[in-house]
Amino acid sequence: MKKKPLILVTNDDGITAPGIRTLVKVMKTIGDVVVVAPDSPQSGMGHAITLDSTLHIEKIHIESGDYDAYSCSGTPADCVKIAINEILERRPDLVVSGINHGSNSAINVIYSGTMSAAIEAGIEGIPSIGYSLLDYSWNANFEASKKYVKKIAENVLKEGLPEGIVLNVNIPNVDKKEIKGIKVCRQAKANWEEKFDKRKTPQGKDYYWLTGEFVNYDKGEDTDEWALKNNYISLVPVQFDLTAHHAIQQLNTWSFNE
Amino acid sequence: MKKKPLILVTNDDGITAPGIRTLVKVMKTIGDVVVVAPDSPQSGMGHAITLDSTLHIEKIHIESGDYDAYSCSGTPADCVKIAINEILERRPDLVVSGINHGSNSAINVIYSGTMSAAIEAGIEGIPSIGYSLLDYSWNANFEASKKYVKKIAENVLKEGLPEGIVLNVNIPNVDKKEIKGIKVCRQAKANWEEKFDKRKTPQGKDYYWLTGEFVNYDKGEDTDEWALKNNYISLVPVQFDLTAHHAIQQLNTWSFNE
Repeated sequence: MKKKPLILVTNDDGITAPGIRTLVKVMKTIGDVVVVAPDSPQSGMGHAITLDSTLHIEKIHIESGDYDAYSCSGTPADCVKIAINEILERRPDLVVSGINHGSNSAINVIYSGTMSAAIEAGIEGIPSIGYSLLDYSWNANFEASKKYVKKIAENVLKEGLPEGIVLNVNIPNVDKKEIKGIKVCRQAKANWEEKFDKRKTPQGKDYYWLTGEFVNYDKGEDTDEWALKNNYISLVPVQFDLTAHHAIQQLNTWSFNE
Repeated sequence: MKKKPLILVTNDDGITAPGIRTLVKVMKTIGDVVVVAPDSPQSGMGHAITLDSTLHIEKIHIESGDYDAYSCSGTPADCVKIAINEILERRPDLVVSGINHGSNSAINVIYSGTMSAAIEAGIEGIPSIGYSLLDYSWNANFEASKKYVKKIAENVLKEGLPEGIVLNVNIPNVDKKEIKGIKVCRQAKANWEEKFDKRKTPQGKDYYWLTGEFVNYDKGEDTDEWALKNNYISLVPVQFDLTAHHAIQQLNTWSFNE
């Protein structure tokens, strides 16, 4: 009998989030699952790792119990590192992160804990996928996602991924029958126009909440934002070589060394 | 008289670090400086932002006092956001981050709080540079860095930067006279081979420290690692469009939508 693939499941909303439960359910239909996920929400953590503090892991029991699950005191990137190096008995065949409660399209990929876990796995040379649903609520409905989450994971297990690349998958928050399919996209040029909500403490001191509005400047029809707006699931290949290779020649004309 | 450029200075080692003091001193020779930096060390924070918590800023007094300085309770990316949106009276002409105590070459760019501040400024459309010295110690000697830090900043103020690009500058920890100059590079393919140092609490519970060894797999002579090893200052143009454009065609051959 062929050995089932070993799939590491993690996220950034914390191990008790409904999104990761859905992801586990789907992955159990295609492989052996181990969960190593943060013990508390880690949204907006970017690619943070824990350098100046200790890490704790707890084996925990969720639902039916026919897979191993560990909560970790660290960030999503920490979870992947400690899973691969300390917890798993063999190298996983696939790492999946999510399903995030909320979008990680466009520039959000950079702030995303979900994607940092996937990228960390990619750095370790393991095929990986981050999944996000465009619904921030805890009661988000992941039903329509399941079929596509599975299809993408199966493709990655079958085909592998090019070196240095992980997948960023975002799923529109619409009914199953409205989803038009999966579209390979580029990251839209969009960002946040921040507004800080300035308040006063009961003692009269100023403090701030970060808020903002997401603005898409990109009219392209090959972007993740376009795909999502048109009820496609967006799939962006993401790289962690951040070099802007096309800019090297131009910078070489500068007079640095005169 | 021509207005002096406004330069925002930040870092990830915290507002009291010697590295940021050096950076301020250099920037004061070419522009008007405002400092907005974390109130505590934020190394390894990646591109984290503060979503579920409040932010506090304090106007503080450092050294000679002929520039404004603010400490912020948030991450380096938060510092840039709040500086631009709440603190500064006009848009800065340049954002500089560092000088970091320790390397941000190769894959370290992804874990770097120093670079997340620079990238955040880039996302906001402001030319920016992250500087790091290859010496982790608090007593690092930044003397040799000064000339080059200034030269690169002056070039950026003069030439601007291509859209969507920020600079990641790393400085070898050698004597001034040994530095051979500045080299435009690509990010080396290198990563960390993690080891977790497993210990027991006084109560007998396991806990872990993340440690590891940095391994360079990349033999190229156009990489930042090569440059630094050969006593050059490395300058990598870094982009925040993470799309692996070259992989899109290949992924389109997959059978997602069958």
